[in-house]
Amino acid sequence: MRLRIGLVELSRYYPVNQPTPGHEYCGIVEEVGSAVKSVRPGKFVIGSFFASDNTCPHCSFGYQSSCQQREFVGGAQAPLLRVPLADGTLVPTPGVPAKEMIPNLLATSDVLGTGWFAADAAKVKPGMTVVVVGDGAVGLLAVLSARQMGAERIIAMSRHEKRQKLALEFGATDIVTERGDEGVARIKDLTKGAGADAVLECVGTQESMMQAIRSTRPRGYVRYVGVPHGVELQGEELFFAHIHLHGGPAPVRRFLPKLIDLVWTEKIQPGKVFDLSLPLDQVAEGYRAMDERRAIKALLQP
Amino acid sequence: MRLRIGLVELSRYYPVNQPTPGHEYCGIVEEVGSAVKSVRPGKFVIGSFFASDNTCPHCSFGYQSSCQQREFVGGAQAPLLRVPLADGTLVPTPGVPAKEMIPNLLATSDVLGTGWFAADAAKVKPGMTVVVVGDGAVGLLAVLSARQMGAERIIAMSRHEKRQKLALEFGATDIVTERGDEGVARIKDLTKGAGADAVLECVGTQESMMQAIRSTRPRGYVRYVGVPHGVELQGEELFFAHIHLHGGPAPVRRFLPKLIDLVWTEKIQPGKVFDLSLPLDQVAEGYRAMDERRAIKALLQP
Repeated sequence: MRLRIGLVELSRYYPVNQPTPGHEYCGIVEEVGSAVKSVRPGKFVIGSFFASDNTCPHCSFGYQSSCQQREFVGGAQAPLLRVPLADGTLVPTPGVPAKEMIPNLLATSDVLGTGWFAADAAKVKPGMTVVVVGDGAVGLLAVLSARQMGAERIIAMSRHEKRQKLALEFGATDIVTERGDEGVARIKDLTKGAGADAVLECVGTQESMMQAIRSTRPRGYVRYVGVPHGVELQGEELFFAHIHLHGGPAPVRRFLPKLIDLVWTEKIQPGKVFDLSLPLDQVAEGYRAMDERRAIKALLQP
Repeated sequence: MRLRIGLVELSRYYPVNQPTPGHEYCGIVEEVGSAVKSVRPGKFVIGSFFASDNTCPHCSFGYQSSCQQREFVGGAQAPLLRVPLADGTLVPTPGVPAKEMIPNLLATSDVLGTGWFAADAAKVKPGMTVVVVGDGAVGLLAVLSARQMGAERIIAMSRHEKRQKLALEFGATDIVTERGDEGVARIKDLTKGAGADAVLECVGTQESMMQAIRSTRPRGYVRYVGVPHGVELQGEELFFAHIHLHGGPAPVRRFLPKLIDLVWTEKIQPGKVFDLSLPLDQVAEGYRAMDERRAIKALLQP
């Protein structure tokens, strides 16, 4: 099928199997192939960066981003997009949304879906202390997700004023500006020496991963959703850290119906991470603004 | 307090903080210090390789082997043993056991407790397919543990006839003799291409760890209880493997009451892993027999 793009975001990088940039998208269905059964032209739909059949053993297990037929969806920075496995991949909204709601829906496609996965996999629940490493769009929306799941304390690690502010608005209770060993020491201080119940690692560097592992209490959860770049973990340190480690490309498809509902009923406004809106032909400026940390996340309007 | 040793096992190695060999033990209490409250002379007790206060935040969370006061207990290859933090560490049996039961009780002290931890942390339950990597005492007792928890299929990876036989006796449903990539391919064959729900890694080498990770389905559990020796994990492979990873020194203390009960009521016979019994002064022969794989595990009688 082909999708007429409503809005696209700019993602800084997603290096795996990515033919062309642009992997977060929502819009109105323009045309469907003959094998497509449930998706109909005229519907407003949202998909994720991995197309999935939603029926294979891994999909049935809720891990659609490891679908046996998965295909990376790229090229969404364009007026039209072809989405494979449309029936398994796309989720319709209850109707065609008002323009103001579209950024919130677009966020569910990846950045919210990914932050939500981190918090869901960490089994965040009332009473828990959750640390979020990373103040990009995913990290900020991991804060929002942990808040939705009722965490008692949410510690956002950020040294960027605008992002700190949004973290607090999304539900963070504490901000920690220190990094590395000092960041770990600060988390230990804030948790009576025990470490956090869960740390959501939303960056993907060696430093951020080690900071996450060392900030977590024994039996606690480290959930990492930033694609690791050159990260190496030593078995013996992991063994004695005694933490639970899990991560990977978020199975956003599993969460889309729930997240669309939260947006549609105006319980959350994840679109606040888009603090720059540009016409499609100014893609380059969008990347520049994000690289220089002038923008958290840019949104493109075709 | 001092413990008169009933029986001690020989463990091949446990390199961390170990002052002197011998970290699995059970026996009759001979003498207690003035601060000891619940442990009384004359009682038959079992402890684990880490002494724990059983009250700190990590103990309360069920991770006694990360106790904030933990102390390694070594030196049990001797007629007498001093166990620190006795009240938190030692668990009494319902009475003084018959001689034939002692090997079964001794097994709870580490090898069963550790195999049990692996299966418990993997949330093994009816219907699951569980792979056990490693056919030492811990691996074999991980098979027994998975059987107790109702796993539908238990695949033991072993190429040693005597150990295969004991694995089957303990409840394994399949034996796989291949290792490395071939071992992974065999597991995939046996699970319709999906991978196992859980893999219990009871060795601690790079090869065994990678075999475990690659044999596990997305969302599945890798639980590693063999102390890792030079193991390095690449973040990106872990990320796309999509598995849950957890391991560490088993919090045996948490499981001791349950395991003692299973032994006392004759539901399990974990002591079958001791296939060589020697007087205390023949320690060296015991190590030799295990190194040459003539014995699964040796037992010493002081």
